[in-house]
Amino acid sequence: MSDQVKYVLDESRLPEAWYNIAADLPEPPPHVLHPGTGQPIGPDDLAPLFPMAIIGQEVSTDRLIAIPEEVRSVYRQWRPTPLYRARRLEQALETPARIYYKYEGVSPTGSHKPNTAVAQAYYNKAEGVKRLTTETGAGQWGSSLAFAGAIFGLEVDVWMVRASYDQKPYRRGLIEAFGGRVVASPSEETNVGRAILAEHPDSSGSLGMAISEAVEAAAPREDTKYSLGSVLNHVLMHQTVIGNEAQMQMDDTEDYPDILIGCTGGGSNFSGLAFPFIGRALREEAKIRVIAVEPAACPSLTKGLYAFDFGDTGHLTPLVKMHTLGSTFVPPPFHAGGLRYHGMAPMVSHLHELGLLEARAYTQTEVFAAGVEFARLEGIIPAPEANHAVKATIDEAIRCREEGVSQAILFNLCGHGHFDMQAYIDYAAGKLVDHAYSEDEVALALAGLPSVTA
Amino acid sequence: MSDQVKYVLDESRLPEAWYNIAADLPEPPPHVLHPGTGQPIGPDDLAPLFPMAIIGQEVSTDRLIAIPEEVRSVYRQWRPTPLYRARRLEQALETPARIYYKYEGVSPTGSHKPNTAVAQAYYNKAEGVKRLTTETGAGQWGSSLAFAGAIFGLEVDVWMVRASYDQKPYRRGLIEAFGGRVVASPSEETNVGRAILAEHPDSSGSLGMAISEAVEAAAPREDTKYSLGSVLNHVLMHQTVIGNEAQMQMDDTEDYPDILIGCTGGGSNFSGLAFPFIGRALREEAKIRVIAVEPAACPSLTKGLYAFDFGDTGHLTPLVKMHTLGSTFVPPPFHAGGLRYHGMAPMVSHLHELGLLEARAYTQTEVFAAGVEFARLEGIIPAPEANHAVKATIDEAIRCREEGVSQAILFNLCGHGHFDMQAYIDYAAGKLVDHAYSEDEVALALAGLPSVTA
Repeated sequence: MSDQVKYVLDESRLPEAWYNIAADLPEPPPHVLHPGTGQPIGPDDLAPLFPMAIIGQEVSTDRLIAIPEEVRSVYRQWRPTPLYRARRLEQALETPARIYYKYEGVSPTGSHKPNTAVAQAYYNKAEGVKRLTTETGAGQWGSSLAFAGAIFGLEVDVWMVRASYDQKPYRRGLIEAFGGRVVASPSEETNVGRAILAEHPDSSGSLGMAISEAVEAAAPREDTKYSLGSVLNHVLMHQTVIGNEAQMQMDDTEDYPDILIGCTGGGSNFSGLAFPFIGRALREEAKIRVIAVEPAACPSLTKGLYAFDFGDTGHLTPLVKMHTLGSTFVPPPFHAGGLRYHGMAPMVSHLHELGLLEARAYTQTEVFAAGVEFARLEGIIPAPEANHAVKATIDEAIRCREEGVSQAILFNLCGHGHFDMQAYIDYAAGKLVDHAYSEDEVALALAGLPSVTA
Repeated sequence: MSDQVKYVLDESRLPEAWYNIAADLPEPPPHVLHPGTGQPIGPDDLAPLFPMAIIGQEVSTDRLIAIPEEVRSVYRQWRPTPLYRARRLEQALETPARIYYKYEGVSPTGSHKPNTAVAQAYYNKAEGVKRLTTETGAGQWGSSLAFAGAIFGLEVDVWMVRASYDQKPYRRGLIEAFGGRVVASPSEETNVGRAILAEHPDSSGSLGMAISEAVEAAAPREDTKYSLGSVLNHVLMHQTVIGNEAQMQMDDTEDYPDILIGCTGGGSNFSGLAFPFIGRALREEAKIRVIAVEPAACPSLTKGLYAFDFGDTGHLTPLVKMHTLGSTFVPPPFHAGGLRYHGMAPMVSHLHELGLLEARAYTQTEVFAAGVEFARLEGIIPAPEANHAVKATIDEAIRCREEGVSQAILFNLCGHGHFDMQAYIDYAAGKLVDHAYSEDEVALALAGLPSVTA
């Protein structure tokens, strides 16, 4: 192996296709159900919300889906993204482990989110859509869709969770700089929003509420569709450009990961890195350890129930089988805003049930300690979400040292923390509060599950 | 020419040397003078502040200075940086011009500053220094030196202009995340600071004051040296890694710039890109247009006097001949904090006198309009400083369209604006105030110039 720290790919090696893990699964995931009938939904049920190309991708079992040239052309602005060898971190930990990370923070909005935002904007534009609605928590997704809308000439309306709207003016500023319109959620613009405000005038909102509002705003208008930044199959698939690149870069290192690590909120950055590696392992009947890392305060994979649930608080979405804390669950405030979702992507949940990945949860103080250590050694301030992956990586590297084994670890550094400095300031001041999700909370949240058990 | 938009260099093409323009000048720049004697200073005068390796570089006339392997090893984390072709901007402007930009925002702190911070930290460490002091305005420099200190195990104390300390907590948080200590300037820790506070208890500080404090704090201690982020020859030289890479990348494009553009505060990012190209033009007796762009509110090159002046408000530094607005000049508040310095790098001033570059000034509202246009097309939010270069580039591209000439323009996108979103929010809200520097201000500031006229 060489002494390189950074593995860059020439533009000519930008992947030509996304990878669809549905092609390689030992058994298919459960159907998506209509909440009224309890029966599997069809394309017509989704047509008011998504363009047909996206609906087709959502249910496709083709292994490779060609990335349109118009999308690749936009990807080229920041893709292929670099893959690093964390040599200074290895030295500081005195570990025999070889630590690699894929860095998605070089994108226009500093995270992996534009990988699917650009694709979704393209397919909507191609089918004549004029306006997209969406929700955003911390703002990574909203800013990414605003950027994609600017590129393809689409209006973008973003329902931003009220707490973030008030506390994260810079992310809001980024959405607006890219030309998006930001609405604090709950808002007076939708029935769902008005109903919530009537009961709770001071509601600070939640991702589940904002999804309901964005869905409601899109459904009745011909020229408007809805766009989701995680959870669904097509979103996870668009993110596999990350793992497809990483496989080429690992080839360049002449090494191969024994362990893959990613943080999970809805599941998209994790899937983007891991699915191509899991798929290869399935096809080659090989083993690879895959670790999903989530916040202890919103532990859907480690503490949730695997059940059919709504994707939103207003219950406008279909029912999906996933690890869920209940659609009415409002996570406590913590800084990894991108991980504050009550459910896990159905495909990630399915893989977990199949035993193809393991999950663990950390509190925010310990993940920020890991993030600061990483920043001072590697020169990149990770996003609070990514700190979860950093923490698990450091723990695995220490385990390698203690066991005297030299393994290769690859994690997804899914974004930078430039818009999250208040979190680092709070951490340095000892002000972070760690929430442990209690059994009472589990019971309360899960009591609200819909009765469908198909 | 190819259809590529991004030109990346493999790590193997990371430059092995910095370029020193002193080797190619038709006449040498004026000496630096001792403020007491009015005579040229020698190495001993600078030894309390800088390590000998740096002092040697400051006066060297060697064309190439080898980059130590320890510095190249750190550079590799983000260098070589990408060079882009701005195809979407070209299309939007309907210009026959070919627009290229070198992007330094991929560095650990999001600007070109680490190029010299890492080198300075290395040379100080190599000579046994334990602690570095410095000043910072907007925070780009302070965070970069804190990062470099973390890498080489040096304490870093940063005097941060009080106005920024209060208004830019996120840049301060970044410095602290990298392990640096931040002191609001003026402070009670120095004689200069205490004297200012005695007279103006509510002083919001200035870069000139902060320099005085950092210099005072370094001079008496054996284990402590001072570090400057711009203006001096060695700083500008360390930045030429930008232009050296850009020359290789332009070779890859099979094109060559007719026009080079950079923003100027102290002059370092501009010099870093331009000097290697100017040097080549001098050696080959070729012509290249080079444009330095500054804020209309702090117009040292376009409105200042070319005279000997102090680098700081407290008059602790030697006298350098430069374009200056007077060392007591406190620029009005505007958002490009990195361009709020009363003087211009002596070497840049000298080149201007020799007719090797031209200068122009813009107000902040027009540069933010250019920056927003660029962001929506190219997907990068430029730093407020860099918006000056973007504005000049757009103006030149429009001129090309109007004149029907196809020229190649290369500008330095010296950093991203992730820590400057308040400026974009203020711009969108129509709250930016444009200051034009008046003749009265010129007279007032220049009346305070020292009487040395050598």
